[in-house]
Amino acid sequence: MRVVRLESEPAYAFGGRAPAMTVAPGTVVELSTEDCFGGAVRGIDDLPSQVCTFPYLNPVTGPIAVEGAEPGDTVAVHFVDIRPTRDWAISTTFPHFGALTATHTTAMLHDALPERVWRYDVDAERGICRFNARDSDLSIELPLDPMHGTVGVAPAAHEVIMSITPGAHGGNMDTPEMRAGTTAYFGVNVPGALISLGDGHCRQGEGEVCGTAVEAAMSTVIVVDLIKGVSTPWPRLESDTHLMSTGTARPLEDAFRISQHDLVTWTADLLSLDALDAYQFVSQAGLAPAGNVVDTNYTMLAKLPKRYLAETRAYEDVHTRLRTTATHYLNQR
Amino acid sequence: MRVVRLESEPAYAFGGRAPAMTVAPGTVVELSTEDCFGGAVRGIDDLPSQVCTFPYLNPVTGPIAVEGAEPGDTVAVHFVDIRPTRDWAISTTFPHFGALTATHTTAMLHDALPERVWRYDVDAERGICRFNARDSDLSIELPLDPMHGTVGVAPAAHEVIMSITPGAHGGNMDTPEMRAGTTAYFGVNVPGALISLGDGHCRQGEGEVCGTAVEAAMSTVIVVDLIKGVSTPWPRLESDTHLMSTGTARPLEDAFRISQHDLVTWTADLLSLDALDAYQFVSQAGLAPAGNVVDTNYTMLAKLPKRYLAETRAYEDVHTRLRTTATHYLNQR
Amino acid sequence: MRVVRLESEPAYAFGGRAPAMTVAPGTVVELSTEDCFGGAVRGIDDLPSQVCTFPYLNPVTGPIAVEGAEPGDTVAVHFVDIRPTRDWAISTTFPHFGALTATHTTAMLHDALPERVWRYDVDAERGICRFNARDSDLSIELPLDPMHGTVGVAPAAHEVIMSITPGAHGGNMDTPEMRAGTTAYFGVNVPGALISLGDGHCRQGEGEVCGTAVEAAMSTVIVVDLIKGVSTPWPRLESDTHLMSTGTARPLEDAFRISQHDLVTWTADLLSLDALDAYQFVSQAGLAPAGNVVDTNYTMLAKLPKRYLAETRAYEDVHTRLRTTATHYLNQR
Amino acid sequence: MRVVRLESEPAYAFGGRAPAMTVAPGTVVELSTEDCFGGAVRGIDDLPSQVCTFPYLNPVTGPIAVEGAEPGDTVAVHFVDIRPTRDWAISTTFPHFGALTATHTTAMLHDALPERVWRYDVDAERGICRFNARDSDLSIELPLDPMHGTVGVAPAAHEVIMSITPGAHGGNMDTPEMRAGTTAYFGVNVPGALISLGDGHCRQGEGEVCGTAVEAAMSTVIVVDLIKGVSTPWPRLESDTHLMSTGTARPLEDAFRISQHDLVTWTADLLSLDALDAYQFVSQAGLAPAGNVVDTNYTMLAKLPKRYLAETRAYEDVHTRLRTTATHYLNQR
Repeated sequence: MRVVRLESEPAYAFGGRAPAMTVAPGTVVELSTEDCFGGAVRGIDDLPSQVCTFPYLNPVTGPIAVEGAEPGDTVAVHFVDIRPTRDWAISTTFPHFGALTATHTTAMLHDALPERVWRYDVDAERGICRFNARDSDLSIELPLDPMHGTVGVAPAAHEVIMSITPGAHGGNMDTPEMRAGTTAYFGVNVPGALISLGDGHCRQGEGEVCGTAVEAAMSTVIVVDLIKGVSTPWPRLESDTHLMSTGTARPLEDAFRISQHDLVTWTADLLSLDALDAYQFVSQAGLAPAGNVVDTNYTMLAKLPKRYLAETRAYEDVHTRLRTTATHYLNQR
Repeated sequence: MRVVRLESEPAYAFGGRAPAMTVAPGTVVELSTEDCFGGAVRGIDDLPSQVCTFPYLNPVTGPIAVEGAEPGDTVAVHFVDIRPTRDWAISTTFPHFGALTATHTTAMLHDALPERVWRYDVDAERGICRFNARDSDLSIELPLDPMHGTVGVAPAAHEVIMSITPGAHGGNMDTPEMRAGTTAYFGVNVPGALISLGDGHCRQGEGEVCGTAVEAAMSTVIVVDLIKGVSTPWPRLESDTHLMSTGTARPLEDAFRISQHDLVTWTADLLSLDALDAYQFVSQAGLAPAGNVVDTNYTMLAKLPKRYLAETRAYEDVHTRLRTTATHYLNQR
Repeated sequence: MRVVRLESEPAYAFGGRAPAMTVAPGTVVELSTEDCFGGAVRGIDDLPSQVCTFPYLNPVTGPIAVEGAEPGDTVAVHFVDIRPTRDWAISTTFPHFGALTATHTTAMLHDALPERVWRYDVDAERGICRFNARDSDLSIELPLDPMHGTVGVAPAAHEVIMSITPGAHGGNMDTPEMRAGTTAYFGVNVPGALISLGDGHCRQGEGEVCGTAVEAAMSTVIVVDLIKGVSTPWPRLESDTHLMSTGTARPLEDAFRISQHDLVTWTADLLSLDALDAYQFVSQAGLAPAGNVVDTNYTMLAKLPKRYLAETRAYEDVHTRLRTTATHYLNQR
Repeated sequence: MRVVRLESEPAYAFGGRAPAMTVAPGTVVELSTEDCFGGAVRGIDDLPSQVCTFPYLNPVTGPIAVEGAEPGDTVAVHFVDIRPTRDWAISTTFPHFGALTATHTTAMLHDALPERVWRYDVDAERGICRFNARDSDLSIELPLDPMHGTVGVAPAAHEVIMSITPGAHGGNMDTPEMRAGTTAYFGVNVPGALISLGDGHCRQGEGEVCGTAVEAAMSTVIVVDLIKGVSTPWPRLESDTHLMSTGTARPLEDAFRISQHDLVTWTADLLSLDALDAYQFVSQAGLAPAGNVVDTNYTMLAKLPKRYLAETRAYEDVHTRLRTTATHYLNQR
C-alpha cells in the first residue's frame, strides 16, 4: 500500500493547471482542504461579500495526475476518511445566491436577501454539529456527516471551469453522498485525469437550499484507481449499498433526465437488459434525491440498491478492492 | 369510531362533482380504487393506447365531503391500509409519456418509443412484486410498498382539473411517501373539501421515470379529519419520522422551490424561527427527493426529520391521534 | 353577411358553461369586453389586491357556440375591429406576479415588489396611449395597437380552466399578434367549440414582463368560421403576412419546442416536405417572439412569412375570405 | 482612420489565449472567419459527425486586444461589413443537437434523428440564398442577411469556455441581430478585453431551431472601440433603431429574465426612471425575440425602439460615431 501526502496551492478551477502530484493507481493520498470561504469567514461578523474576493472562492486541492489515465478511461476516487479540522464550521447566505432568492440568472428586481453568517459548533467525538439560530436562542444538534461538495477531473475540450460550477467533469455537485466509504467514478478527459477536490461539509441537506452547507476545512484521505478502457459519461458514485448516477444541468428536469438516462443505460449494461426493460426496472426500483439546486448548474442523483443486482458488480468490483485498501489503511494508522 | 364504506362511480377529475358521501371528521372510510388503466390492461398484449380511451384514465374514487370543512381550513387524510386486490399488477410505457421520451410539451421530431407492457406478479403474503423483463429471462423481486399516486381535494377558482395533473390541490403527485402510516394535509378550497383518491401502486421509484408505476387496484382504508382555521398552501405529508412539504410545478426547480419554501415557512412557524434561521436550518437538515417528473406538472418533496423538532407537533398533533384511530381499527378488524 | 350582437355575463374560465349564443359559421359578432380588473381599477390609488377579488379576475365574454363544430374540427376567429371604449387604460404590478419577481411557483423568501398602478391616457384619434411615470415627470407616447390577451375555446377532457391560464385551448396567451386583421385557429374539443375572449390591451410588449399590459375595456368585432374535418393541435394565427404557431407550457423552452414543432409540421404539410426538410426550412426562415412569460403557463410564437409559400394557402384560404367579410362589414358600418 | 488586417490561427474557445493583435480604440479591423464546420462540410455527403472532430468546431478569429481596456470598462464592436466568401453555404442536422431532438442534456432513449446536410446556393449580387429540399424538388429563395453567430470577449474568473457556449462574455449567442450596422457592447473581464468572432451565417431564423444556420465563411470588417469606466453586465446590442439587451442561461425563462432585467435597468439609467417605472415602460414598449434555443446555453433578446428615448443616447453615442467611421471606410474602399 503506497501512501503519499499531497501539498498544493489552492486552485479555483478544474482544468488549466499542471499536476501537483502524480500517483500510481491504488495509491492512498492524504490531503487537506480549506473551506469554501478560503478560511476567511471565522465568525458571524465576517460577511463573505466583504472578506472574500471573487473569483477566489471554493478553493480545491490538487490536481492529482493518475499514471496511465488516458481519455476514454475512468478514474475512481474512494473516500477513506473526511474529518473536520476545526471545532467550528460556517454557513451563510450570500447576496443573490441560493434557491429561494433572486440570482444573477433568475434575475429579478428584488433587493438581495440579508447576508447572514451562522457559526456551528463541531464536536467530532460526539459526532455532532450544533446549529445556533441568530434571531432566537434556539440551538439544535445535527449529526456530523462529513463529505466533499467538490470533486472532479479536468474537463474536456480544453475548458477551464470555475470550481463552483458542476458538470460532466464533476466539480461542485454538492451531494451528501460524497462521504467516506463512497467511490466516485469520473470519465477521463486529459492524460492523468487531474483530480481535484475541496468544499468540505460537516453535513448538508439535499439541495443545499440556502447555497452553503456546514462549511469546514477537512483532513481527508482518498485512494485513487484507474479502470482502463471503460468510459464514464457522467460522474457515478458507489457505496456499499447503492449505485448512483449523477446528472448536472439546468433546468432541473434535465439534470434528472441525465441521471436517469445514465442509470438506465448502466443498469442495462450490468444486467444485460435492453433499454426499455432497464427503463422499466429503474422506474420501479430507483431513488432520485437532489444534489444541489443552487449552483451555476443543478445536480440530481439516480440511485439503485445494489441488492437487486445479485452477483453483478460494476467496474470490475473496484469498489470492494478500494474498501479493502481503506480498511487496511485505517487499521494501520 | 365511525367506520363507513364508500362506493362511488369512477371520476376522472378533481372538482366539478357532487360528493359521493359526507362524513364527520374522524371517520374511517373503507374504499376501493381501480388502477390507472381502469383495469383495461390485464396482460402484455393489452396496449394502453388501444384498450384505454382518453380522457377516461386514472379513475379516482370519491369525492368525500368532510362535515364542517370550509375554505381556509385543512383536511387530513391518514392512510390506514393499502392492499393490492389482485395477484398481478401492470406497468407500461405509453407513447409520448415519460421522462426519457419526447412528449406533447417537450415536443420533438422523434417517433414515439415503443409501447410495452410489463405484468408483475404480486405476492402479498411474501410482500413482494416480481419484475419480469420482456426482452430477456431476467426477473427480480422487489418489495411491496403500496401507496396512492393520486389524492387531493377540489381545486380553487372553480377549476376542474384532470386527475392526472397534480397541483396545489394535490392530485397525481406520485410520491412513494403516500403509503399506509402517512397523513396527508390539504388546504380546503370548497365547502366539504371533496377528497378523492386513486392510482394505487404496489411500489414506484422516485420520479416515476417511465411514466407509470406498478399499477394496481387497491382496497384502501383512510381516516379523514379536519383542522379548523388553519390553512395549508400546498399539500403536506407527515409520517412517524418526517414532516414533508410538496411542490408541484414546471420547471422542476420551481417544484423544488415551492416545496422548500413551504418547509422553511412551516419550520419557522413550528420552531418560532425567523425566515432566515429556518432557511439555514432546513438547508442543513432536509431531504429533497423527487415525486414525479413525468406528469403534466412535476412534484418535489422537502422532508425534515421530526426528531429535530423536540416536543413540537404539527397541526395540533392530529397525526398521532389518527395513528391511534388506525391502530384501533386494525386491531378490531 | 349575418351580424349579431353578443351580450353575456362575465365568465372567469374556459369550459363548464353553456353557450351565451349560437351562431352559424361566417357570422359577424359584435361584443364588448371588460378589462382584466373587471373595471375596478380606475386610478392610481386603486390597488388591484384591494379592489379585485380572486378568482374574479380577467373576465371573458362568451362563450359563443359555432353551429356544426365538433371535436376534430377547427374554428377560426377573425378580428375585425378592436377599440378601447374609454380614454384611459390601466397597468399595474401585482404582488408575486410578473417575470422579474418571486411568484407563487418561483417561490422565494423576498417580500413582494411594491404594488403600483399606472393610468395611461388613451387618444384613439391620434392612435396613441401615454405612459406617465409615477416616480418622475416623464411621459412617453406609445402607439395604440389594440389586441386581446385572452381568446380560446372550451378545453378537452371536461376541464374547466381559469381564464388567466393559457394552454392548448388558447386562453390567456397574451401575444400582441392577436390584433385586428388576424385570424386565430383553435382545435375544437366540445360540440360548438365555445369561444370566449377578453383581456383587451391598448398595446403590450412581447413577454408582458411586469404581468399586465395597457389594460382596457374593448368594443370588438369578430367573424367566426368553421373548418370541418381539420384538426389543430395548438392555437395558430394568420395575418396577411405571416403564419404563426403558438406553444404554451413551462419551462419556456417547452413552449418554444411546441410552437416550432407545430410550425415545422404545418409547413411540412403545406409544402409537401418531409419533416427534416421542413425543420431545416423553418430554422432559417422563421421568427420566434415571446407571447407571455408571466402567466401560469408561458407562450412562445413561431412565425413564418407567407411570401415564402408561393401560392400555398392554409386552411383552404379561410383567412382571405374572412378578410373580405371584415372589409365588407367595415365599409357598411 | 486606422485600418488593420487581422490574420490569426483558428481558436475554439474564449479565454486562455494571447492576443493575435492589439489595436487602439477606433481601429477598423478587416478579418475573415471560417464556417462552424471549419470548412470541412462542402456537400451533402459530408456528414459533420464524420468530417469534423470534436472539439475542433466553431472556429473563431482573434483574439483582438483593445489598448487600454481594463476590467470594469466596456468594449464596442461595430459590424461594418459581413460578406459570404463562397457561392454556397451549408446547414445540417447533427446527432443529438437542436431544439426538436433529444440532446446530451435533454437526455432521452430515442435514437438520434437522421444527420442530413443541405447545401444552399448563395448569390451575393441578388442578395439571396437558396434552400434546396433534400427529399423533394422544392427550392425556395431566402434573402441574404449575413451575421455572426459568435462574438465575445475573454470570460471572467480565468475561465476558458468553448466557442459554442454563450454566456455573460458573449460567445455563441446566435442572434440574427448581429448584422452589419449593429454595435455590440461587452463588459471587459481581462486587460485588452480579447475580442474573438466567427460562425458567420448567410441568415438564420430566430431560435436556430435545427441547431445550425446557413453557415458560411465570411469576409468581415469591424470597428472596435472602448468606453472607459462603464461596465456592461451582459452583452448589449445597438442598431440604428433599437437598443437590445441579451440574456443567456437555461431554462429559457432565465435567459428572458436576464435580458429583461438588463433592459429595465439600462432604461432606468438612460431615462432617470426608478426601477418600477422602467419595468412598466419596458413591459409595454419592448420586444422579446429568441436568439438561440439549441446551444449549451440559450439566448433571449430584449429590444427597445430608440424612438421612445427622445434625445437620450446610450454609451455616449458611440454607435453614431462608429456608424460614421463605417461609412467613411466603406466610401473609401
